[in-house]
Amino acid sequence: MDAIKKTILIIFMLGVSPLINGQDESADSTFIRAIYDEVLGNGECHENLHYLCKEIGARLSGSEELGEAILWGESLLKKYNADNVVQQPVMVPKWTRGNYENAYFVSNKNMVRSRITALGGSVGTNGAVEAEVIEVKKLEDLEAIGKEKIEGKIVFFNRAMDPLLINTGNAYGGAYDQRSKGASEAAKYGAVGTLVRSLTHAQDTFPHTGAMSYLDDVPRIPAAAISTVDASALHHALIENPSLKYTMELSCTSYEDVEQANVIAEITGSEFPDEYIVVGGHLDSWDIGEGAHDDGAGIVQSIEVLRILKALNYQPRHTIRIVLFVNEENGNNGGKTYAAEAEKNNLIHFAAIESDAGGFSPRGFSFEATDDAYTNYKSIAPVLEDYGVHMSRRGWSGVDIRPLKNDYVTLIGLIPDTQRYFDFHHSKRDTWENVNKRELELGAGSMASLVYLLDQYRLGK
Amino acid sequence: MDAIKKTILIIFMLGVSPLINGQDESADSTFIRAIYDEVLGNGECHENLHYLCKEIGARLSGSEELGEAILWGESLLKKYNADNVVQQPVMVPKWTRGNYENAYFVSNKNMVRSRITALGGSVGTNGAVEAEVIEVKKLEDLEAIGKEKIEGKIVFFNRAMDPLLINTGNAYGGAYDQRSKGASEAAKYGAVGTLVRSLTHAQDTFPHTGAMSYLDDVPRIPAAAISTVDASALHHALIENPSLKYTMELSCTSYEDVEQANVIAEITGSEFPDEYIVVGGHLDSWDIGEGAHDDGAGIVQSIEVLRILKALNYQPRHTIRIVLFVNEENGNNGGKTYAAEAEKNNLIHFAAIESDAGGFSPRGFSFEATDDAYTNYKSIAPVLEDYGVHMSRRGWSGVDIRPLKNDYVTLIGLIPDTQRYFDFHHSKRDTWENVNKRELELGAGSMASLVYLLDQYRLGK
Repeated sequence: MDAIKKTILIIFMLGVSPLINGQDESADSTFIRAIYDEVLGNGECHENLHYLCKEIGARLSGSEELGEAILWGESLLKKYNADNVVQQPVMVPKWTRGNYENAYFVSNKNMVRSRITALGGSVGTNGAVEAEVIEVKKLEDLEAIGKEKIEGKIVFFNRAMDPLLINTGNAYGGAYDQRSKGASEAAKYGAVGTLVRSLTHAQDTFPHTGAMSYLDDVPRIPAAAISTVDASALHHALIENPSLKYTMELSCTSYEDVEQANVIAEITGSEFPDEYIVVGGHLDSWDIGEGAHDDGAGIVQSIEVLRILKALNYQPRHTIRIVLFVNEENGNNGGKTYAAEAEKNNLIHFAAIESDAGGFSPRGFSFEATDDAYTNYKSIAPVLEDYGVHMSRRGWSGVDIRPLKNDYVTLIGLIPDTQRYFDFHHSKRDTWENVNKRELELGAGSMASLVYLLDQYRLGK
Repeated sequence: MDAIKKTILIIFMLGVSPLINGQDESADSTFIRAIYDEVLGNGECHENLHYLCKEIGARLSGSEELGEAILWGESLLKKYNADNVVQQPVMVPKWTRGNYENAYFVSNKNMVRSRITALGGSVGTNGAVEAEVIEVKKLEDLEAIGKEKIEGKIVFFNRAMDPLLINTGNAYGGAYDQRSKGASEAAKYGAVGTLVRSLTHAQDTFPHTGAMSYLDDVPRIPAAAISTVDASALHHALIENPSLKYTMELSCTSYEDVEQANVIAEITGSEFPDEYIVVGGHLDSWDIGEGAHDDGAGIVQSIEVLRILKALNYQPRHTIRIVLFVNEENGNNGGKTYAAEAEKNNLIHFAAIESDAGGFSPRGFSFEATDDAYTNYKSIAPVLEDYGVHMSRRGWSGVDIRPLKNDYVTLIGLIPDTQRYFDFHHSKRDTWENVNKRELELGAGSMASLVYLLDQYRLGK
């Protein structure tokens, strides 16, 4: 840590701040009620999400649509009278799915089509890949099966998300390695392609895409997600005929990185203008569906936080920064660039909140924070219970804000109800119609309320 | 209170029971985890709901479909090896919507159709009613406007549900009188029909029906719900042309009451077989949609509670009674009959739980109970927090179980997340597709867990 930052940190720690046990509960209750009245009575986030989903649509990093979304976000934040609205340049990957993706096998002389979609970052098949299929449940199975039986085949990773976990995010985390690392792990044993069971609890015909990456030292083989219904069909067909031939065609292409941008906007703080509370989500989405829950919801909620605070003439003590990050889905260059620029410019980030788990009814917040900050939040949190915000826990905050992590910043993730998220996540079903207006608004209200509490009480300091 | 009941009550109050502060948290945690594993891993409630919604469908009291549903429920409970599965006869009203319902007005020479649906219990129009429209916000407005201006007109009750209330059930309660009493109140001033803005927060084109009733001493005039989109259109048209003519046609008919039945099934208690814990919902629904959330969800969850406890070989101390009530929607004769029979036979109801607020993620429970019972529940409730069950409050339990209310019974309503319920409630959108499997299962798991805790700890006693 350099001298300037050390000094700033010391000032921080000595900083005069209201004690939590000096909480003015009545003032807090009144202001928080006003926040919810504003968002439920005059909310604009659902309409803003409609524009983002229907007029712009899916917006993968490197796409023209993401370029449009950046201009839309910038313009909307200016319309809401934010201070200092700027674009922060970010280099992002560019990858396209191309215009076809097909897969089928022949069983009992019938051609059975699978609904598949390329994983983000996959190479194309360069013609069709036709091969036998070997089904596995986990990466470790590959070693046990061995190169002889895998070579020349398509590896089919078919481990379902664990239905017994209450938080579906944990179930996703437990099945994620098949998608993220499966291709390179299978390629080590000579596989020519991979199919990955879609990461969803839903039994349906929609494949769910998502990021994968290749190791440098193994061949790059094509990787696709297969819908859960088609994964079951393939599983049963393989029991009947283990040597069936599977054909897959993917038309994806990778390009050179291109420059796009995070969008940053502020409400300047009156007392600690050089200390920032970030509120954000990510503007990019996958290229199928509309990126409504992931993460259009987080974007319009973050913008709504600014709109609400402006509408209530709230003058924050700290500078509130709304950040629309880019490239969360396949690189996190938006989050990394934001944090690197903050470090380079010695910006003090007091706290950051991210909404990137869907626009569902808010249940609480998860904290990556000091013990003090977390304890202080817990002492003040009951004021949010009337609004259905009951949960608090230590744990993951958000991909975009995570690069800001250090010993003193408070990183917070909004926890919406998790049950339906993976029904939509990274699939064609992630559309505006599946986002409930009130659930989205309540999420924005809970974020604005938390910003208010962080700003008033400097929880961690 | 008669002598026998007094004696029973005294025995009750002296009853030896484990103290809550003797809670075996580890055993409770283990058993509750087993409940959730069973419902999330092997749950059958979502498939059962599919049958009820798709093979039987809407099932209004007095309909053949409700007759089928009664047989289906009885048969399913027997299949799950319930004890003492019986039908309890209940007299219910019979009313039919008929085969047409039309409404329109002419504005700027264009015919504008409204999507309406008769309120349950309404008389038909006996030909078309054509009249001017007077728009009001509340019942009390009628007196201020006066008979002269209302006579011969259609009264249009257009008060929206209050969006600022966090619990949508409270917003429903605040707008309900327009639907339930509007027709007779308007008829007192000579109105010839009523239109009621649909009780939903959604801005859509689906009218939402529901119960209404007539006073004996005023003329019975037809009453229909109008979709929120069409209510707005009519509101704006009336501003432009206050004397526009509105035409409505309803083809409903009322018949003599018919006999149908509650279905009752048990798991006999080992220690207190003569004390009952009721778990239920209502089997009847409105005649549009599929009655999926209202209240197919509550029915299949109640049956699932029995299936879970059987699957886990749980031997309850008290007798658990699953009750599939009929006629909640338009008379509550199922609930009233059940309570009257219980009273006649001096049955001791220790507690009753109802699920009738939709198959959404469970958030907690509301209690109509003694202070002791409620305090005891609060002390034991943290064991449910891992499953997202955080809320407890005093308040409304459920329509079907309410007639059991006395000084000692503990009546409990499941509180699911309320935000989406009225998007579907009493409309064509209340279909199986709109019920999420995991949310439904978590509700059943939370009910089974509460039954276990009530049974183990005799909370109120």
